[in-house]
Amino acid sequence: PPRPLQSPSLRLAPSRAFSNNKILVELDKSSGVATMKFKSPPVNSLSLDFLNEFCVSLMKLENDRACRGVIFTSAVPTIFSSGLDIMEMCGKSREHYAQFWRAVQEIWLQVYGSNMVTVAVVNGSSPAGGCLIALSCDYRIMVENPKFRIGLNEAQLGIVAPFWFKDTFVNVVGHRVAERSLQLGSLHPAPEAHKIGLVDELVPEEKLQERAAAVMAEWLALPDHARQITKSMMRKAVLDRLVAHREEDIQNFINFISKEPIQKSLHIYMEMLKKRK
Amino acid sequence: PPRPLQSPSLRLAPSRAFSNNKILVELDKSSGVATMKFKSPPVNSLSLDFLNEFCVSLMKLENDRACRGVIFTSAVPTIFSSGLDIMEMCGKSREHYAQFWRAVQEIWLQVYGSNMVTVAVVNGSSPAGGCLIALSCDYRIMVENPKFRIGLNEAQLGIVAPFWFKDTFVNVVGHRVAERSLQLGSLHPAPEAHKIGLVDELVPEEKLQERAAAVMAEWLALPDHARQITKSMMRKAVLDRLVAHREEDIQNFINFISKEPIQKSLHIYMEMLKKRK
Amino acid sequence: PPRPLQSPSLRLAPSRAFSNNKILVELDKSSGVATMKFKSPPVNSLSLDFLNEFCVSLMKLENDRACRGVIFTSAVPTIFSSGLDIMEMCGKSREHYAQFWRAVQEIWLQVYGSNMVTVAVVNGSSPAGGCLIALSCDYRIMVENPKFRIGLNEAQLGIVAPFWFKDTFVNVVGHRVAERSLQLGSLHPAPEAHKIGLVDELVPEEKLQERAAAVMAEWLALPDHARQITKSMMRKAVLDRLVAHREEDIQNFINFISKEPIQKSLHIYMEMLKKRK
Repeated sequence: PPRPLQSPSLRLAPSRAFSNNKILVELDKSSGVATMKFKSPPVNSLSLDFLNEFCVSLMKLENDRACRGVIFTSAVPTIFSSGLDIMEMCGKSREHYAQFWRAVQEIWLQVYGSNMVTVAVVNGSSPAGGCLIALSCDYRIMVENPKFRIGLNEAQLGIVAPFWFKDTFVNVVGHRVAERSLQLGSLHPAPEAHKIGLVDELVPEEKLQERAAAVMAEWLALPDHARQITKSMMRKAVLDRLVAHREEDIQNFINFISKEPIQKSLHIYMEMLKKRK
Repeated sequence: PPRPLQSPSLRLAPSRAFSNNKILVELDKSSGVATMKFKSPPVNSLSLDFLNEFCVSLMKLENDRACRGVIFTSAVPTIFSSGLDIMEMCGKSREHYAQFWRAVQEIWLQVYGSNMVTVAVVNGSSPAGGCLIALSCDYRIMVENPKFRIGLNEAQLGIVAPFWFKDTFVNVVGHRVAERSLQLGSLHPAPEAHKIGLVDELVPEEKLQERAAAVMAEWLALPDHARQITKSMMRKAVLDRLVAHREEDIQNFINFISKEPIQKSLHIYMEMLKKRK
Repeated sequence: PPRPLQSPSLRLAPSRAFSNNKILVELDKSSGVATMKFKSPPVNSLSLDFLNEFCVSLMKLENDRACRGVIFTSAVPTIFSSGLDIMEMCGKSREHYAQFWRAVQEIWLQVYGSNMVTVAVVNGSSPAGGCLIALSCDYRIMVENPKFRIGLNEAQLGIVAPFWFKDTFVNVVGHRVAERSLQLGSLHPAPEAHKIGLVDELVPEEKLQERAAAVMAEWLALPDHARQITKSMMRKAVLDRLVAHREEDIQNFINFISKEPIQKSLHIYMEMLKKRK
């Protein structure tokens, strides 16, 4: 299981930068910092294909000695990621739901448990699963624009964020803020997200790259080994909880998502999204 | 056991508004919002009679399909609730202490675990058990008046807030604030209570009702089912802890309260209260 | 095992003030407040001798009926304590490492679990183990001087704060602040330390004693018994965790500190410190 913090990571030969369909990966060997740019228009939704590509790209970086940190950002204007692709949860087979959910779990286990320094540059709105990716990083920079919003808004769609989304959220913003935000399915405008600690700082669009590089340099100044063990110490309990209940969590997802009223409300939501375009 | 979040709640036929001795209950069927107004002068102390009535009234609302949210407030000027009735803890039998403590536990299990949206409109001071009721709600509005104070001040009386009071408090204000406040038995004036997150907002007296309705509408805009499961996910660990140790907690209370020095200090406190009048 | 909060403490005959090599202890019997002044120049580092003396002095106060509170402060200008003495961790035997680590654990168990009111008057910089002593108190006052810094900066030295340092830190500043601060090995200037809640208040140098006395009086106004049980309730889980894993924690320390790269980096650090002088 891909839990880099728990087991000695395999370090393969240095890789070059690579690109593919949905994510552009660039590795600057001089700094040891990679950038993973989401480029899956219109909204960088986390489809099964996107997740699989994300997983493979991240694992390559994790195993590349030349890479010590990774920045996640979006190549699509105004959106970081819209979260889990509703198409993957609507009118599909139980086998498909299982495969999809396992891929979602995998991404979280990899990002939250990464040995690398992870920085989210949230350069657009970031609901639900998009927010989870940001929450799983070591540091979050958001563009200083109140039009962009971020949050775990699952409850708004009539669905429920799984316990490990919740655990990750609580670790960032504390129990009270998480309880209220999750129940209301709040999408917080950037200034509010900063105020409640959901993001660490706000930066004007044109300064995002500069700040991301500076933050990354600050974190990479620490000896890797001590930083990695410290990170693992902070996150292990929450990572272990999903690992221990992974199959159960998949069954829960399948049972929940297969329910007729849930399918109906997702369908309505999807139709609404189509009309918006 | 009345843990509405854990088991499918029984939904009986729609009930009408009802009133009785110590609590006035009004249900607005158009909005689905009930108001429970404490009217047990002089200080709305939580006597066994009050708790039993509270329990029955709340259970009726919980099982009423027409009711989706409940507002707790006081009909007695300047006081929300003074907390547990010291008369019930002074010079009574062990059986009485057991019955009383079970009723206190019951109220907390019901309010903290309610499927309904719960809003506390704290329109006066609210020490100890009064504070607990507010802490157990989804949202707390307090009147903007520094004369009114709120907190778990048990330590001031030489007694100790039980672990589930503490757990509820920590979930709202965090570990550090709770540790200091509980050890000092602090009663926080409204502005300070707001600053430390013990209440969510301060509102002038004349705007309390308007704000309560607006907050309630915001929470009721969410689909019940998703909101309820989310709430349960956030509160289950703490609810389960009391359920697992309920009888032990009752024995602890009886043993502690029966001690001579505790009885003596409660007696002194009671005499002091009488003189004040 | 010296866990004063867990077992009824032995109360011996009133002791007089006592002093010895590295710590000056003064007990004011009228107020019941003792002061432990660290006077081990140049930097009050926590050597095995210092820890043993600390342990004995604190235990005497704990068992002295005349003593209800203790203030920790430094007699050395500009430094509270520089933390664990690196000399004790460099080029010594496994037996020595075991003895040293057990003494470090002991101090934390005693201070974090003390029945007395404990106030840290941080009148200088306080990295690593120095910060731990402050974190383990009931209240932290720091001198209002941005030149002085405090934090768990172990990661900067390539080592890792043990889990109970982390637990203590999380209980004070919350999970998110702790995660970032520990990974970066941050030393926070006094104003920042106050902002993140690492210290409770900042006071000008000349007012430190006055404020310490006032804070102590506020805490001592509470009945001891209720305050002590409340404190134990808040800290027991974290104390129990070390007690349960104490030998394992010692083995972990020995194995980690004995590693050649760790020895090498501590050696380089020590040489650097020597050159500075």
